[in-house]
Amino acid sequence: MSGSGIVDHPVPAESTGGPSNDVVMEHALERSLAASREVDEPSSLVARFADQPLQLDCGQSLDSFQVAYCTYGTLNAERSNAILVCHALTGDQYVASRNPVTGKPGWWEIMIGPGKPIDTDRYFVISVNILGGCLGSTGPASTNPATGKPWGLEFPVITIGDMVKAQARLVDHLGIDQLFAVIGGSMGGMQVLEWAARYGNRVFAAMPIASAPRHSAQNIAFHEVGRQAVMADPDWLGGSYFEYDKVPRRGLAVARMAAHITYLSEDALERKFGRNLQNRAAKTFSFSADFQVESYLRHQGSTFVDRFDANSYLYITRAMDYFDLAADSDGKLAKAFEGTQTRFCVVSFTSDWLYPTRESREIVQALNAVAANVSFVEIESDKGHDAFLLDEPELFATVRGFLGAAAKKRGLATAAP
Amino acid sequence: MSGSGIVDHPVPAESTGGPSNDVVMEHALERSLAASREVDEPSSLVARFADQPLQLDCGQSLDSFQVAYCTYGTLNAERSNAILVCHALTGDQYVASRNPVTGKPGWWEIMIGPGKPIDTDRYFVISVNILGGCLGSTGPASTNPATGKPWGLEFPVITIGDMVKAQARLVDHLGIDQLFAVIGGSMGGMQVLEWAARYGNRVFAAMPIASAPRHSAQNIAFHEVGRQAVMADPDWLGGSYFEYDKVPRRGLAVARMAAHITYLSEDALERKFGRNLQNRAAKTFSFSADFQVESYLRHQGSTFVDRFDANSYLYITRAMDYFDLAADSDGKLAKAFEGTQTRFCVVSFTSDWLYPTRESREIVQALNAVAANVSFVEIESDKGHDAFLLDEPELFATVRGFLGAAAKKRGLATAAP
Repeated sequence: MSGSGIVDHPVPAESTGGPSNDVVMEHALERSLAASREVDEPSSLVARFADQPLQLDCGQSLDSFQVAYCTYGTLNAERSNAILVCHALTGDQYVASRNPVTGKPGWWEIMIGPGKPIDTDRYFVISVNILGGCLGSTGPASTNPATGKPWGLEFPVITIGDMVKAQARLVDHLGIDQLFAVIGGSMGGMQVLEWAARYGNRVFAAMPIASAPRHSAQNIAFHEVGRQAVMADPDWLGGSYFEYDKVPRRGLAVARMAAHITYLSEDALERKFGRNLQNRAAKTFSFSADFQVESYLRHQGSTFVDRFDANSYLYITRAMDYFDLAADSDGKLAKAFEGTQTRFCVVSFTSDWLYPTRESREIVQALNAVAANVSFVEIESDKGHDAFLLDEPELFATVRGFLGAAAKKRGLATAAP
Repeated sequence: MSGSGIVDHPVPAESTGGPSNDVVMEHALERSLAASREVDEPSSLVARFADQPLQLDCGQSLDSFQVAYCTYGTLNAERSNAILVCHALTGDQYVASRNPVTGKPGWWEIMIGPGKPIDTDRYFVISVNILGGCLGSTGPASTNPATGKPWGLEFPVITIGDMVKAQARLVDHLGIDQLFAVIGGSMGGMQVLEWAARYGNRVFAAMPIASAPRHSAQNIAFHEVGRQAVMADPDWLGGSYFEYDKVPRRGLAVARMAAHITYLSEDALERKFGRNLQNRAAKTFSFSADFQVESYLRHQGSTFVDRFDANSYLYITRAMDYFDLAADSDGKLAKAFEGTQTRFCVVSFTSDWLYPTRESREIVQALNAVAANVSFVEIESDKGHDAFLLDEPELFATVRGFLGAAAKKRGLATAAP
């Protein structure tokens, strides 16, 4: 859900006319082509692991795979100042630089850069496109070396753990033994937790934001609606749409619209849109987008399909549904963190109903149960789940403060060498 | 959203196999045929208003229309014991008798019948299929007399006010000057409020349950997702699917799935389903319905399309979006009720996030501002919005108590003559 907070997003003008799918159906061919070019040959850095199999949780393995990534700042001589940033469902590696598909700034530029809370004058930031993604790391849109065609649904179903294993390979490749910090929001926070549980000694500090130790029934339900919307689109073609030069645009747009509602809070929707009409003085008594909130959602849907692969959406939502850190530790979340030396800062937002504060509290309680070093910050915000992407000064102060204190403990210089 | 509460609904077995739309796609031809027969010639009672135009809020009028309805109990000699029951989005007139399409019991049999809170030994209950519906009252699936074909999108966009105007015609037809009570949940509650505002002197007592004086931005957003899901289905065919013997099954099922989540509470979903797997010991690493909550939602989607018309779904959601009682009274909700002599009882549920308690409070405050006779009950429940359809003893006691006190005031006999 990266980079689409309602704070700075314009409400686009809507095409006129009666009941129609026109907005959802608008094509942006250039972007789609740009997106498909990025799949195997990303504009970013890429590490290729040929003939170095990645064993997956499902039992299958990928013989070869690649991880697309960006870096910002400078790795110090001790290789001790690296921060791994993990992205959310529809995010990517372009956290602080121009996205080659959308042409927009990085989705976390507000957070990452010189002098910013994640200060690239001080830290070496690594941001990775997740396994299963569609901007350069191996995923269902990538070319399957065995067939020369996109994987599609032949791609194995992956987990958050698999994503993290792939990231660990990249960290090895970069010659880094221990990350100074791993940080991420939403599904990014799940990766943070998985890193801390699976590779505790490789993570000095961990910051899961607006996240949860497992996906709730309601969240699985919303994901299932999105998947069914994609699969109901005849252009999905059983996941083989690329073979027919089609894209399940309508289904993916509907999926995005449904999901997008869950990223906001009711208060934010009321404040921003309420019942305001879109470029008209009165109700039209039709099914066109009379209300601004309708126009906004249609825009969210139609722009999303230009930058995201429908099968990737299926795989990543599935990985989130499968995430349940306690289940992998005999049902005891605390056991996942037993003996941890990592310092944690857990962050939630008051109006986040997708990953409500109580789920962050569960993480904190589990960490307390193993006497981990943990702080917890619940930030007052009416912006909903997407608050982690937006202008939230208390979040900035929390990130800066936590990293600063950990850096002191770790003995990092106040600026990179 | 009638009759589909999670309390008594079985989780169906799911067909096996990999990623597929099979469950959503399963046909139940008999039910669909039964549903289409009900559109013009309902199994229930029907009042036909031929050449008695109904002036609509959009400016158009319906030259002829019909209202399908059921009655229960006996109208007393004074014609003073009639209770009008208004249904929600996907409800119908079969409140306390077998639904001819689904073969299931009435959707509010728990509430209405001899000795029940709405006691048919005492009251004469009228339940009406709304204008725009698809079970016998005139709607987009009905035959347009001008063409001999279904109205489809030629049907004018209607409002909650229009629904109520059509109901008032039926009440006239039945020779009833003043209804003893008007009662309904969700969109049924909107009709109750509209009745009280538009025909105050014809309503002795009014009970809006789990409702709101206007549709919120978030609720408009969810409806827009549903409409886009329907319209994105190629079988919708611009609303003319009936001409091609098609039904936009997939789109309508997705719309229903998304909406259904909003009818429940997160707690209810956790309690009922949690992360339980559906008829399997372990995750399948596929896109089949591993989780019970997925299987349940797919079932909700697929059964809904057998009983409901897709265009009706568009029209009714639109009517709800357009509902804003204050806007029709110079922006002052209180003004809508000025001088009212009606006795009100407003009911909300603590876990209802679709129509949260604060929206019921707005109704109460507006009624207080005009010194109306109003009581307000917020019922503690974890069942979400659908609580009004389910086994909620405090709701039953509230309905029984409010109606009993009002009946005493109205001078009704304790049992019908």
